[in-house]
Amino acid sequence: MSRYTRILLAVDLTDECEHVAERAVQLAQECNCELHVIHVLEPMSIAYGGDVPTDLAAIQGCVQEQAASQLQEFAHSIGVPSERQHLACGRTESEIRRVACEADADVIVVGSHGRHGLSLLLGSTANGVLNGARCDVLAVRVGSPAR
Amino acid sequence: MSRYTRILLAVDLTDECEHVAERAVQLAQECNCELHVIHVLEPMSIAYGGDVPTDLAAIQGCVQEQAASQLQEFAHSIGVPSERQHLACGRTESEIRRVACEADADVIVVGSHGRHGLSLLLGSTANGVLNGARCDVLAVRVGSPAR
Repeated sequence: MSRYTRILLAVDLTDECEHVAERAVQLAQECNCELHVIHVLEPMSIAYGGDVPTDLAAIQGCVQEQAASQLQEFAHSIGVPSERQHLACGRTESEIRRVACEADADVIVVGSHGRHGLSLLLGSTANGVLNGARCDVLAVRVGSPAR
Repeated sequence: MSRYTRILLAVDLTDECEHVAERAVQLAQECNCELHVIHVLEPMSIAYGGDVPTDLAAIQGCVQEQAASQLQEFAHSIGVPSERQHLACGRTESEIRRVACEADADVIVVGSHGRHGLSLLLGSTANGVLNGARCDVLAVRVGSPAR
């Protein structure tokens, strides 16, 4: 079996993703492979409901700009060059899977709270990515133990 | 961040688990860590419904004996000694998590079909393990691409 050649690290750019990133960086070093990083912005109409002011496009543009800047800063801090940084907009799980396919990643690294029930962002994202992923998925435990 | 020190590989002892095992063995070699293997038998009353003959215990004993033998053979084929082989009986996901805790594993490796909807054994097991796991979970893609 060949080693992993391309890792896609999915981050939400919160403090917790640093732990997940460390694991991805470590795996990339051990496998001597390419590390890509993705951050997904959910469309604002979904994120904030339908009652939004009419300057939605301007706000979305501003949010995207901020996210791009944060992603760039984060990616550089873990040594990922700009051509391997992916900022996507859409449904988190499907965008992660889409970019994983495009980048020909053989493993997706994503954080998981590992809790039942509550749809916490990372936990549900890990589950969502797992369902339908064409490649392996490493769910890295974040937060306190589940039980 | 420390490397993984103990891996728990969960197998259903079908042909597909060989691919999952290869990945676990590779990870164990790269991290130079202990590899444990677990196979879980679902209780027969759950697996076959309530209408079972009265010699259930005898049948269960026979099934357990066969599973133990298969697990031993499989584990030896990937170089896992008997003290790191775990045959459990109960709900697959919770038994995997329990043994992961007992063995102090920092990552569980499990196969996943990565499909939506249908409760295929490995897919649902990977999801179930992910929910509530105290450690990382590597879901290894088995079977044909999901979509």
